[in-house]
Amino acid sequence: MQHDHTNLRVPGPTPVPEAVARAGAQPMVNHRGPEFAELMGEVLEQLKPFFGSRSEPLLLTGSGTGAQEAAVVNVLSPGDTVLSVTAGVFGDRFAAIAEAFGANVVRLQGEWGKAISAQEVGEAIENAGDVKAVLLTHNETSTGVTNDIAAIAAVIRRLVPDAVVLVDGVSSIGALPFELDEWDVDVAITGSQKAWMSPPGLAMVAVSERGWAAHRQATMPRFYWDFTKAQKNGEKRTTPFTPAVGVIRALQEALRLMHEETPEGVFARHRRIGAQLRDGLKALNFELFSDQVAASNTVTAVRIPPGMEASALIKNLRKRGIVVASGQDWLKGSVFRIGHMGFVRPEDIDGVLQGLEASVAARRLEAVV
Amino acid sequence: MQHDHTNLRVPGPTPVPEAVARAGAQPMVNHRGPEFAELMGEVLEQLKPFFGSRSEPLLLTGSGTGAQEAAVVNVLSPGDTVLSVTAGVFGDRFAAIAEAFGANVVRLQGEWGKAISAQEVGEAIENAGDVKAVLLTHNETSTGVTNDIAAIAAVIRRLVPDAVVLVDGVSSIGALPFELDEWDVDVAITGSQKAWMSPPGLAMVAVSERGWAAHRQATMPRFYWDFTKAQKNGEKRTTPFTPAVGVIRALQEALRLMHEETPEGVFARHRRIGAQLRDGLKALNFELFSDQVAASNTVTAVRIPPGMEASALIKNLRKRGIVVASGQDWLKGSVFRIGHMGFVRPEDIDGVLQGLEASVAARRLEAVV
Repeated sequence: MQHDHTNLRVPGPTPVPEAVARAGAQPMVNHRGPEFAELMGEVLEQLKPFFGSRSEPLLLTGSGTGAQEAAVVNVLSPGDTVLSVTAGVFGDRFAAIAEAFGANVVRLQGEWGKAISAQEVGEAIENAGDVKAVLLTHNETSTGVTNDIAAIAAVIRRLVPDAVVLVDGVSSIGALPFELDEWDVDVAITGSQKAWMSPPGLAMVAVSERGWAAHRQATMPRFYWDFTKAQKNGEKRTTPFTPAVGVIRALQEALRLMHEETPEGVFARHRRIGAQLRDGLKALNFELFSDQVAASNTVTAVRIPPGMEASALIKNLRKRGIVVASGQDWLKGSVFRIGHMGFVRPEDIDGVLQGLEASVAARRLEAVV
Repeated sequence: MQHDHTNLRVPGPTPVPEAVARAGAQPMVNHRGPEFAELMGEVLEQLKPFFGSRSEPLLLTGSGTGAQEAAVVNVLSPGDTVLSVTAGVFGDRFAAIAEAFGANVVRLQGEWGKAISAQEVGEAIENAGDVKAVLLTHNETSTGVTNDIAAIAAVIRRLVPDAVVLVDGVSSIGALPFELDEWDVDVAITGSQKAWMSPPGLAMVAVSERGWAAHRQATMPRFYWDFTKAQKNGEKRTTPFTPAVGVIRALQEALRLMHEETPEGVFARHRRIGAQLRDGLKALNFELFSDQVAASNTVTAVRIPPGMEASALIKNLRKRGIVVASGQDWLKGSVFRIGHMGFVRPEDIDGVLQGLEASVAARRLEAVV
């Protein structure tokens, strides 16, 4: 819980521990000086285990959508055939970005709330023809579904060995295990305001050797997001343009906390918390939106009970100091979403469950009166 | 001076007052909730007088270069003839972005360290043919020169009334008077880490009616920077993608301080401080890089005295707690730059001058020994 005792349970921006917030508020430093170089060096090193990659991550100033755009424009060319594997708002957004920049996007449209299987992806690739790239969502924040990237990437590699695999890990990396090198993924993106318990404003990207090779051929227009500029400056432990220094400072402290807990400890806590929340919701007779086998351990979408208004429930929870998110797109009004990534402990989830129980009871009472 | 007593005098990121840093470290809030809506409403309203515009500014998550890219891709189409008026690193960057996205860029290359006159711009327009847009730099951060945007914009309006005028005000707006409506400028950009005494990560943009009309016709590819998305969400006092909430919180506090001082008071302080620094430098026999009639009141480029190493001087100042910036591009090694925008007081400038005097004296002593 944050230092104002709000139980902020939206799937980003997530709560920032007081020590992390304080670290972000340290006096400003020159991003071309030695203090920043040391800071950046530590952050890059500490990020690597969470990306599951020996490669040096890139730091970009922007939000998760900016990182999606960066991934697309850095490895694709206009006219490239791109398979978009999507079953939610963020998968759709990834596809829309590729289309805006001139890719020929073929969609594998999965059912919202369900995982997309490696087999379905394989079939879609065989139907799509010359697939240059595949856009995947590791954890779909709009539905609370985690996809099996390892299995999907393996099928892609078998069918189209040279295709670049772009993974939106905005709401997964740092909370769920991710193995860029082992899974043979090419570009993975994440954002400071999700699993990293840091304020929004910073995107982190990891790129494989195949990703860098694709980058050198890619002709989509780019300047601000250019990976080459980020990488060349990164070697000198700076950034091509003024970075979000405060957010990087916050992230440094957050990463120290995460390494103190160990990556495995962080992942295990997210698994436990996810199960705790789902069990608690079921005990209160709430219906989960997503398929249980694919249930995300960072965000849960819950159906609004029959006869209840989404906005009334959200407002009622807010009165109790609990902030949850509404449904997105066509799910607006029929689901609400609970974020449980980053700075989250069992007692925060207890608080949400108690708040939900009380909100439902209050409603029943109103109905009786 | 910051709370760690460092005299951070680079032209961005600039020092952040302790109250502003503290405001930025408040507990996180949902960017789709009422607290954020109130915050954003206040910030937009308080920004307007500094843009000199009745239009509602847009908030984008990114650095100044991101805002340059946003300005270009939102109002131009590939193939458009664009006049780039440049005499420094940031003017060149603005042109490079327009080229990267397919504009036909014609350059008016001014001499570095000098202002570019309205007459030169008029002649360049007459030579360039069908100019759709003009890229201007209000304050060139690499040379410490302020251009007369009012006069230049007036000539552009007379010769090509429908051309859109894009102004990079990254290191001017908030410190130097700017009048988007009165000067008939179409897109003006700035960044939180300059005059606004806030951490980096947030760009602010103002757009004229003509700019919006051009936007509706513009076909350069865009998604993350799209003005329509920013504007539609802005009306609901939110942003299309997760914004840099902490930086916006910091900016709210900084704007309160700036309005307490009044915009005119802020501008007058920058004028006084600029003169104080230039007079002090001359008294120490330092030679200014820029033409005195065009000297910037936010950043000053100073020639490295003969026989002195730029890096040695910068290191010597750093030992005294004063952080200045090196020269950029071909000026690296021959100038250093002093930032004096945002959180800057006469005593900070006294400190810089004393540090310079001591550094030069130390060097003389070394030379004698």
